[in-house]
Amino acid sequence: MTIIDGKKVSKAVREELKLEAATLKNKGIVAGLAVIIVGNDSGSKVYVKNKVLACEEVGIKSFHYQFSEDIQKEELIFLIKELNSNQQVNGILVQLPLPKHLSEREILSYIDPNKDVDGFSAYQMGKLVLGESGFPCCTPSGIMELFRHYNINLEGKRAVVIGRSNIVGKPMALMLTAANATVTVCHSKTVNLQQITKEADILVVAIGRSRFVTADMVKEGAVVIDVGMNRVDGKLCGDVDFEEVSKKCSFITPVPGGVGPMTVTMLMKNTIGAIKRNE
Amino acid sequence: MTIIDGKKVSKAVREELKLEAATLKNKGIVAGLAVIIVGNDSGSKVYVKNKVLACEEVGIKSFHYQFSEDIQKEELIFLIKELNSNQQVNGILVQLPLPKHLSEREILSYIDPNKDVDGFSAYQMGKLVLGESGFPCCTPSGIMELFRHYNINLEGKRAVVIGRSNIVGKPMALMLTAANATVTVCHSKTVNLQQITKEADILVVAIGRSRFVTADMVKEGAVVIDVGMNRVDGKLCGDVDFEEVSKKCSFITPVPGGVGPMTVTMLMKNTIGAIKRNE
Repeated sequence: MTIIDGKKVSKAVREELKLEAATLKNKGIVAGLAVIIVGNDSGSKVYVKNKVLACEEVGIKSFHYQFSEDIQKEELIFLIKELNSNQQVNGILVQLPLPKHLSEREILSYIDPNKDVDGFSAYQMGKLVLGESGFPCCTPSGIMELFRHYNINLEGKRAVVIGRSNIVGKPMALMLTAANATVTVCHSKTVNLQQITKEADILVVAIGRSRFVTADMVKEGAVVIDVGMNRVDGKLCGDVDFEEVSKKCSFITPVPGGVGPMTVTMLMKNTIGAIKRNE
Repeated sequence: MTIIDGKKVSKAVREELKLEAATLKNKGIVAGLAVIIVGNDSGSKVYVKNKVLACEEVGIKSFHYQFSEDIQKEELIFLIKELNSNQQVNGILVQLPLPKHLSEREILSYIDPNKDVDGFSAYQMGKLVLGESGFPCCTPSGIMELFRHYNINLEGKRAVVIGRSNIVGKPMALMLTAANATVTVCHSKTVNLQQITKEADILVVAIGRSRFVTADMVKEGAVVIDVGMNRVDGKLCGDVDFEEVSKKCSFITPVPGGVGPMTVTMLMKNTIGAIKRNE
């Protein structure tokens, strides 16, 4: 059984990105990522700080905008429009959640889809469906990167994704299908879940319920990817009962240190990719 | 066993659409659909003729553009841009395939996504992923309409889609997932296909191989939807061995007269929907 080391893979990808950023710099091009945060949510602040630090590490210029909780939507939209036309900015990201008086869907809709490096827009999501290159959602594309680094073969394999969220479950299923796996998406309305998960060579769990997947739900030798990030008695734990499931599977991601470190790294990859696309 | 009558359902939907078109007309609004055809492909001409006739039947004004095989792409793009800004036109559709010197992806990319009533654009496909209202692809949304009309319950059911095309397989899987089915997408790289299809309560086949699905691949009592349209010895036949499979299943679509009649009707529905959205 191999524990998939997301930190290690993330570091390796960042090394590649540093080289790409350096090559671009030699041509006089510096990638730029604008990060907008509204309010004082401490979780959001940590996420944004990590993104800014990752930019520094890789060699991306970050533009950090902090607004107070009570910002008017017009002000936010005005900034987004400015950033859309700012040639130094290749990617724009609005840290979610936004305060309740702002509609996330409305605000995000103002981001130029060609700068939507989070890949949350309809346009980028549709490119994923159509198999066109674009900015794939960062968490599932980080998981695909883990498969590549560990030489995990997906073709012809049965893959089961538990969870059908817009930012993990559904794009994950599309990416696995494109990689020639036979994919089943399970969710809260699925009947006989265990019967289905037991068939999975590849099991991806993204539902936000601590230790939901137990050993009796997993096939011997499966690859188990745990996207969960739950806090129980002050400790982080995933959606998978790591202790028991790890005894049965061939590969497993730990929480923390598995999928988590990949997300920000893939955001960096999309931001550098934004330049390469426009060259 | 019930044979799903696509002609009947199509007629019922068109009656609803006629009423909607009449209501709009009372407000002085007439829906408009522009149909562009390039070259002399006889199949394409039949499809376009059917679309124009359907417009007449429902009460949609159609704008029909016929170009010769050797049209330059600039001319086509110029027309599309004009139609994008023409307020009488709510939907624009370019009949595929296009001649080889024209890139379909490039040409289609000029259609205003808010007039893409075929639902082929990244933007419309992404709206489907995100669960936002828009113009869903016509063939799979026609199948959803068949399920509704025959009161076929999808929630918690195992659905298997064979085929992962951009215009049927993938959007079909998204629609079935949104309807709370547990969906598996199978394709040419799937191993043990029969084992998977035998689990299906709902089986949708869209691969373009005549009589590919045989009775031994189908679960007793399943609902079988055949999207295939193959010509064998001058006769139309589907992807399902109708004669044998129909003995086992609870519902089945015939070819022709099953899924086929729904596609153009859903195009009409999207075109009228385009107006309702903008009201």
